[in-house]
Amino acid sequence: MKNIKITVEYDGMNYAGWQWQPDEPTLQAELEQAILRVTGRQVRVTASGRTDAGVHAYGQVVSFQTEAELEPYNWQGALNHFLPDDMAVIHAEEVGLEFSARHSARGKHYDYIVLNRRTPSPLLRHRAWHVSVPLDVGAMKRAAVHLTGEHDFSSFQASGCSANHPVRELMLLKISVDGDLITFSLGASAFLRHMVRNIVGTLVEVGRGRFEPDDVADILAARDRTRSGPTAPPQGLYLMKVFYGESPLEEDIGG
Amino acid sequence: MKNIKITVEYDGMNYAGWQWQPDEPTLQAELEQAILRVTGRQVRVTASGRTDAGVHAYGQVVSFQTEAELEPYNWQGALNHFLPDDMAVIHAEEVGLEFSARHSARGKHYDYIVLNRRTPSPLLRHRAWHVSVPLDVGAMKRAAVHLTGEHDFSSFQASGCSANHPVRELMLLKISVDGDLITFSLGASAFLRHMVRNIVGTLVEVGRGRFEPDDVADILAARDRTRSGPTAPPQGLYLMKVFYGESPLEEDIGG
Repeated sequence: MKNIKITVEYDGMNYAGWQWQPDEPTLQAELEQAILRVTGRQVRVTASGRTDAGVHAYGQVVSFQTEAELEPYNWQGALNHFLPDDMAVIHAEEVGLEFSARHSARGKHYDYIVLNRRTPSPLLRHRAWHVSVPLDVGAMKRAAVHLTGEHDFSSFQASGCSANHPVRELMLLKISVDGDLITFSLGASAFLRHMVRNIVGTLVEVGRGRFEPDDVADILAARDRTRSGPTAPPQGLYLMKVFYGESPLEEDIGG
Repeated sequence: MKNIKITVEYDGMNYAGWQWQPDEPTLQAELEQAILRVTGRQVRVTASGRTDAGVHAYGQVVSFQTEAELEPYNWQGALNHFLPDDMAVIHAEEVGLEFSARHSARGKHYDYIVLNRRTPSPLLRHRAWHVSVPLDVGAMKRAAVHLTGEHDFSSFQASGCSANHPVRELMLLKISVDGDLITFSLGASAFLRHMVRNIVGTLVEVGRGRFEPDDVADILAARDRTRSGPTAPPQGLYLMKVFYGESPLEEDIGG
């Protein structure tokens, strides 16, 4: 038995998300189908976590166990041969049997991209959130300061979802501007459901002037999802990298 | 009668190109349909030039005459309301009746993007040319030097197409690298059909080592399309900007 770790890039536009669902196109189903065609065996894969419908990945990590005797290099080529062109294996390696893409993960890095200009962009329509009113980036940066570190993020957790405990350590929250693109980079050991999109949705409310930067401290302290801003739409969100191993997350993600 | 000049961004992926064709989806047809829905009148628009199937634009320029009494600001909003989401008007203004998007053009700037890594990129599959063998960028830059300036570009003209005269002045040919993306920026007063894609296709042959950099001087001098490299595929090509007015092209495009 071999344990294979692969890194996958995908355009989430045409999928109902990562996780397998009956009668819906999912990224997990495409990958399991490709593995079946390579090996002749049905395999269940484990991802670092699910991504929602429309969310993209440059570095989703997936592991699966197989008896097939392929070199890691050949896994990449063989799977890409059968995968649709909106999904590709960009790295493959053999790892110890104890490795799990989900349980061994030590941190994740997401980017969220906002297009901030009056007119929509056809070339970015599935790749960014179009916000047509000018955003105050300085105010958003002042608000972001309140969110880094270890906090109870209940106010930024998807309503209806309750994780075992809602405390997470947000190690990185950087906002950078390039022309009319605003990129929010977030790094944490783990995220709650919709946490990135709810943080971005709230910071954009600050940028619009609907919240003051310091209001975000109160929103966080309230531990109440109804206090924060709307969930930012999925098409601006990218799973950039999943971290494993011993090195401190702060160094890995440059935070 | 008013003369309206608009700047249009589009994702060319789902179109048979700019120019109207029977029974094919074209960008011109979409725009003329939107104008019809805004004004109630059939209008024929004039673009700076056609773009081929799959080619994108950040700054295509189009002009049309109309009796409709809309402010330029309202033209933009009204047309975008009716255009499909892979096409948008990003600027609109009223210009003198003598202005033609085609005949008044003084120059154009195209970018061509190559993704140079072993594995394909799902997120760039319709936005760049994937070249999997490592390219020698230094060699491509040495080759490019032979192409700038005024030359007979017959060797880089689409076969079967004969412009009135094949002499063009290539004022800018810059190659820049950002990670695994290579961008070719070309500026000229006018281009022959497929000229950008044939130049990029030839420079990539240099980058692969199939041609020496100095071979490009011989290919240019031969004035023979069969000597140059293959036509680069359309999805890496972007019409960035069209230049009008008196200012020298060299300054406008930073060449």
